[in-house]
Amino acid sequence: MPANADYEYDLFIIGAGSGGVRAARMAAATGARVAVAEERYLGGTCVNVGCVPKKLYSYAAHFHDSFTDAAGFGWQLPEAAVFDWPTLRDNKTLEIKRLNGIYQKMLEGAGVTLFSSRAQLIDAHTISLTLEGREVQVTAKQVLLATGGWPWVPSFPGSEYALNSNQIFDLEAFPKRFLVLGGGYIAVEFASIFNGLGSNTHLIYRGELFLKGFDQEVREFTRDEMVKKGVNLHFEANIQRIEPSGSALNVYLTTGEVLEVDVVLAATGRRVNVEGLGLDALGVALDENGKVPVNNRYETTVPSILALGDLTAGPELTPIALAEAMQLVDIHFNKMELQPLDYSTVPTAVFCHPNIGMVGLTEEAARKTYSKIRVYRTDFKPMKHTLSGSSERVLMKLIVNDENDVVLGAHMVGDEAGELIQGLAIAVKAGLTKSDFDRTVGIHPTGAEEFVTMRTPSRY
Amino acid sequence: MPANADYEYDLFIIGAGSGGVRAARMAAATGARVAVAEERYLGGTCVNVGCVPKKLYSYAAHFHDSFTDAAGFGWQLPEAAVFDWPTLRDNKTLEIKRLNGIYQKMLEGAGVTLFSSRAQLIDAHTISLTLEGREVQVTAKQVLLATGGWPWVPSFPGSEYALNSNQIFDLEAFPKRFLVLGGGYIAVEFASIFNGLGSNTHLIYRGELFLKGFDQEVREFTRDEMVKKGVNLHFEANIQRIEPSGSALNVYLTTGEVLEVDVVLAATGRRVNVEGLGLDALGVALDENGKVPVNNRYETTVPSILALGDLTAGPELTPIALAEAMQLVDIHFNKMELQPLDYSTVPTAVFCHPNIGMVGLTEEAARKTYSKIRVYRTDFKPMKHTLSGSSERVLMKLIVNDENDVVLGAHMVGDEAGELIQGLAIAVKAGLTKSDFDRTVGIHPTGAEEFVTMRTPSRY
Repeated sequence: MPANADYEYDLFIIGAGSGGVRAARMAAATGARVAVAEERYLGGTCVNVGCVPKKLYSYAAHFHDSFTDAAGFGWQLPEAAVFDWPTLRDNKTLEIKRLNGIYQKMLEGAGVTLFSSRAQLIDAHTISLTLEGREVQVTAKQVLLATGGWPWVPSFPGSEYALNSNQIFDLEAFPKRFLVLGGGYIAVEFASIFNGLGSNTHLIYRGELFLKGFDQEVREFTRDEMVKKGVNLHFEANIQRIEPSGSALNVYLTTGEVLEVDVVLAATGRRVNVEGLGLDALGVALDENGKVPVNNRYETTVPSILALGDLTAGPELTPIALAEAMQLVDIHFNKMELQPLDYSTVPTAVFCHPNIGMVGLTEEAARKTYSKIRVYRTDFKPMKHTLSGSSERVLMKLIVNDENDVVLGAHMVGDEAGELIQGLAIAVKAGLTKSDFDRTVGIHPTGAEEFVTMRTPSRY
Repeated sequence: MPANADYEYDLFIIGAGSGGVRAARMAAATGARVAVAEERYLGGTCVNVGCVPKKLYSYAAHFHDSFTDAAGFGWQLPEAAVFDWPTLRDNKTLEIKRLNGIYQKMLEGAGVTLFSSRAQLIDAHTISLTLEGREVQVTAKQVLLATGGWPWVPSFPGSEYALNSNQIFDLEAFPKRFLVLGGGYIAVEFASIFNGLGSNTHLIYRGELFLKGFDQEVREFTRDEMVKKGVNLHFEANIQRIEPSGSALNVYLTTGEVLEVDVVLAATGRRVNVEGLGLDALGVALDENGKVPVNNRYETTVPSILALGDLTAGPELTPIALAEAMQLVDIHFNKMELQPLDYSTVPTAVFCHPNIGMVGLTEEAARKTYSKIRVYRTDFKPMKHTLSGSSERVLMKLIVNDENDVVLGAHMVGDEAGELIQGLAIAVKAGLTKSDFDRTVGIHPTGAEEFVTMRTPSRY
């Protein structure tokens, strides 16, 4: 091994997603020599095939409701609105190209060397790249694995006809009939998106209810709202096989039902994206959850090789990858001694329609942990829908530890739930009490004021 | 005076607005004999000519932007949407009738006697009503004045052609050209509403900038956004006179300009609604701010006569009237000893377009009170508008006491600002620090996450 000064880079990052880019910029800002290898697109899953295009499509799908809702407010559309998929798709692509460019400028501006190449680990300090068709080896004092996750599709007869979530954004033609397999947040989001954009939409999930891990009442409420919006939900069902039929696909379910659709999305989970990285040869093995094990310093079993983000344990969320990147740089480049990140009160949103927002414990988890809890919950027709004619309702609930009045969790299903929950997340994270909520004056008329005006527990 | 048991009522409430109705229900729930006199409509300003219809109209006005925004998301409207004012107005009226009915049922269900009559105080325990054309006197141990406020219009040549905010909701015809006089929240809200619904809209305000008392940067940002949306703002201007011209009105400004419009709204302030109540004869005088003075027990200078809500000092907000009503009942009927309400951290929203939300101190107020503050601020194009083509931007700022890191104020201009600020208000009210905000993980992708990810002060 060469002496430190002889490494070409202080930090070589594989993967220019949310975590990799943030780590690169922060490390470079400390004066470190930093390089990033990215074989595909800058910004990773979030920017290219995740949060960003998903949210843009969700906005697009919401307009459909707007047009209907508008009538009650006096707005007449002489002719029905027409949806043109290529416009949305191509405008989305332009916006993502713009964001890719911003990431590139940020990296360049920070003095980070960017290699457009696949990268493979040769040893604990050496990375192999392919530049202009030739293999090049570079060395680094530390290597950061930030390659994130990749959609995983189970194998079944005809599974090759199913698209994964990376492929769904750029469909050539809009599917009049859409089917998604899965019960996680990606599945419910795409069901809502295509349903809102006008597809006849089916969701197939083997379990009895989607969104495992979310509050049970939230899951049931979301189910009922999605059904009202016209999504066909098939629980305790799975795909047995897919057979093409002309340009359509016949999907045979384990229930005996056969659905003819145009597109099948398999939103059946994500796995770490480590194929070809060379981890095996270095002795870095995945743990029992299929993740790359790291210690509190983000070091793998090979100390010079670090990992963060979706590769490692902890919630697979962009803000987590960002937080880990900043902490990793603080530890290794700013020589700070830090407490491990606390993943216990991470707020999150699901952009199904209506949206879900949550922070802290579900009612079920709170019951398991605490001897007595108070549940405050309300569901109501939001003011907007008193005129729109829509039957959409909102659910809000607070879970409180009855022993010390601390608010353990806040949950919402409804418009802009993620936007509303963010502020509550500060309060829940800080361990504020229900009395602190009660002392706060409501902002009238909003939906959010219900979170500070619920006074009578619905149950204990 | 009769002995207590000889009074017909324990509590006689004049005015069935937010405060009066809440006090009536809460007091009746303690077993008290309660009556309410209301000469106009149940629910008061908020339900009938305030929060509720204003918010419904604001929703209606937002659709206009939706139709334009939709194009970038692939939605084509073959023909432009047409706005029909009577549909909106009459649907609004139906919804308010429904709410009036709910209020009536709530009062009846609580065992409250309801008189549809104007009420006048005869002495400290006697109220005169007009029932079926005849004067009737009733007695009560305590009388609660809850008559709220009433729009006030200054006198100038032709001021009789100006409508007030009570009259604007039920216009016979939609004004193609609309002018509002005033610089408060009602003025900016109606300017946004009629502009959004399609009126050519002018706002005239004598000061150099509207929304006095709000954060200066918020005021300037709102001004710029409203101009972008097409509202014609005339500051340092006033109406000299209004002259009718056929069915139109010529409005002569102090600047020399003459504007021809269809409707003039004078949103020039509100005064306590006490005319004819008989306060003078009882020796209850208004204070120098034109409010009914009360002590910590909501007692006027005549101890058996109480007052709350917009009649008294404190913010003129529905949630404040509600909080006061509940506290008043706790003091007088539940015999609790309570601290006075804390009006220092009352969050509020303005439903102009874009919305404003705020809690705590403005930057200017914080600078006056604290020796050193940190200001974190960001403005950005919300993700939705990366595709919509709209140039609308969002402003968010946090004001922090540099000495102890406490967040003193949070401000936002942007979509659903009131919904977002409600959660932050819990944190600000509880005195949480900027570190508490920083420790909270962002919900990606939302706008609200900016409130927990701003790390570098913009200024001190």
